[in-house]
Amino acid sequence: MASKWARRLDMVAGRVDMTHGSGGKAMAQLVDELFIAALDNPLLARKNDNAVFELPAGRVVMTTDAYVVSPLFFPGGDIGSLAVHGTINDVAMAGARPLHLSAAFILEEGFPLADLRRIVESMAKASRDAGVGVVTGDTKVVEKGKGDGVFITTTGVGIVPPPVVSPSGDRARPGDVVIVSGTMGDHGVAILSSREGLAFETSIKSDSAALHRLVARMVEVVPDIHVLRDPTRGGLSATLNEIAQQSGVGMVISEESIPVRDEVTAACELLGLDPLHLANEGKLIAITDHRHADKLLATMRSDPLGREAAIIGHVAEDPNRFVQIKTTFGGTRILDWLVGEALPRIC
Amino acid sequence: MASKWARRLDMVAGRVDMTHGSGGKAMAQLVDELFIAALDNPLLARKNDNAVFELPAGRVVMTTDAYVVSPLFFPGGDIGSLAVHGTINDVAMAGARPLHLSAAFILEEGFPLADLRRIVESMAKASRDAGVGVVTGDTKVVEKGKGDGVFITTTGVGIVPPPVVSPSGDRARPGDVVIVSGTMGDHGVAILSSREGLAFETSIKSDSAALHRLVARMVEVVPDIHVLRDPTRGGLSATLNEIAQQSGVGMVISEESIPVRDEVTAACELLGLDPLHLANEGKLIAITDHRHADKLLATMRSDPLGREAAIIGHVAEDPNRFVQIKTTFGGTRILDWLVGEALPRIC
Repeated sequence: MASKWARRLDMVAGRVDMTHGSGGKAMAQLVDELFIAALDNPLLARKNDNAVFELPAGRVVMTTDAYVVSPLFFPGGDIGSLAVHGTINDVAMAGARPLHLSAAFILEEGFPLADLRRIVESMAKASRDAGVGVVTGDTKVVEKGKGDGVFITTTGVGIVPPPVVSPSGDRARPGDVVIVSGTMGDHGVAILSSREGLAFETSIKSDSAALHRLVARMVEVVPDIHVLRDPTRGGLSATLNEIAQQSGVGMVISEESIPVRDEVTAACELLGLDPLHLANEGKLIAITDHRHADKLLATMRSDPLGREAAIIGHVAEDPNRFVQIKTTFGGTRILDWLVGEALPRIC
Repeated sequence: MASKWARRLDMVAGRVDMTHGSGGKAMAQLVDELFIAALDNPLLARKNDNAVFELPAGRVVMTTDAYVVSPLFFPGGDIGSLAVHGTINDVAMAGARPLHLSAAFILEEGFPLADLRRIVESMAKASRDAGVGVVTGDTKVVEKGKGDGVFITTTGVGIVPPPVVSPSGDRARPGDVVIVSGTMGDHGVAILSSREGLAFETSIKSDSAALHRLVARMVEVVPDIHVLRDPTRGGLSATLNEIAQQSGVGMVISEESIPVRDEVTAACELLGLDPLHLANEGKLIAITDHRHADKLLATMRSDPLGREAAIIGHVAEDPNRFVQIKTTFGGTRILDWLVGEALPRIC
């Protein structure tokens, strides 16, 4: 069928202009020829300003994240796949099965349509691979110099299958075991390695991945995991400290048990950074009753995304809510929670 | 209780800095002292990266919108109230009852915390007034010159109460009656009047308002409204043209029956704009079987937000899908759909 538009969008040399966000024909064409075509979802294709779908009765999870990662493309992913994975993971961290995503784009005038297509297609692939569709969206354009290429906000909804008790950051209890699903700091180093002015040789790729299938296997084996959290911005240190604050407990972590790739350690030594402060985008922390720990660990290790899972410590009573780390040399230090992060715009 | 932070945020002279988006202590403090305090919602206060709530079985609606309005404050509202109203309205346009909102903020480094507080408090008030809470959120910060003060993306979920048949843009049928809930162009003129360099004297305020209670009354009286749509970006002309495209029909609209305030007409004459191309943020278009039209109109007029509702035309068979407008002088013209919009960043 011939396009209903006079000319197709120039996806090779074309650029985003203000009309693409103004609710007129130009925006409708961009939505048709790029977003609806790539994301290929019957709910999206209805072109209402909303998506309507059926859910079974029960517990629903909703989560949202704005993605402003810089650069937009990095080893192992881009802002499109990251925006799908990150929000799926935030839904999964409630022990839930992610069902649908929405996506809102804020585009900067002048952004190449070819880059936008690459991002949207990457988003579509991540969404297909995860089996979680983008069902509704929005596109806005801001003047050149009032944005930075592309920002994407994705929101996810999912359902918590019974009889799962929702994991929550306030449910860590003294005696619980702390498990991580794999190596720390990969995403942070991948972003750093691709920044202009900071380029250095490394083979590290972002760990960006959707963790919902791993979580589904975990909650099947241990329905009452106390805490599930993905250590993104601020890394392991911020996430453990947040959980300690929320639950009113301390933690004792063994440094040598934390999986870190040699290349990440090397890059961090070069740059004066701590891998425990760097963001991860395909890892989770699980805190569980010690009686379930071995079973949970074995289940995690049997999944491709949890192959390097490890028990890294335990929850302790501590009115100060300190996260203590036993160093490789036998000492103990407080694993601090930074005021900011080593790296802005990591996700 | 003493704050757990060393110093409270300086909400008078303080400014957003990069640490406020980096997942560390500074971000946690901003979330605690501003977002959680103002938005005051038990789900948000749990501080997980997601919100968990119960829904009855049935039809769920999800919608998202990025708000990039410029300026951030305008007569009759600001980006905070707009982001609440706009997304509630997109949920309501599916005939649904909005239940929960998420909000993701992209802040520009250097943005005054006092302005941010004003926006978040306005958002909180709009949310309280509407009875639809902000249950989860996210905050990111971009470097100065990579954003424009504040962008907000809100996503809404709601449920469609049985026996409502979901209104949809593809359900307009020849013979159906087209109703608008009130005057056209108020939001567009309000934004224009507050733009630097375009300032002119007008008493027009934005019509920004949450329409879900009006919609609830409408679907109670007429459960099978064929189309509900809020004519935001692109105004009445873009919205009617979109519906005509989606439904494969034409429309015949009477110009003199379209409510437009005298001040809006005057401002549009001054600026060479057409009120039918200007955005509205508290108005809706309803398309219904002609047998229900009078009943629906009476119900709308009995609501404060539909007091000036009017029948403006009807749906017609037309393979060209033209929206024709009968002018005050007895002629007929095609109500065109602009390529862009008269005004970028209107919402």
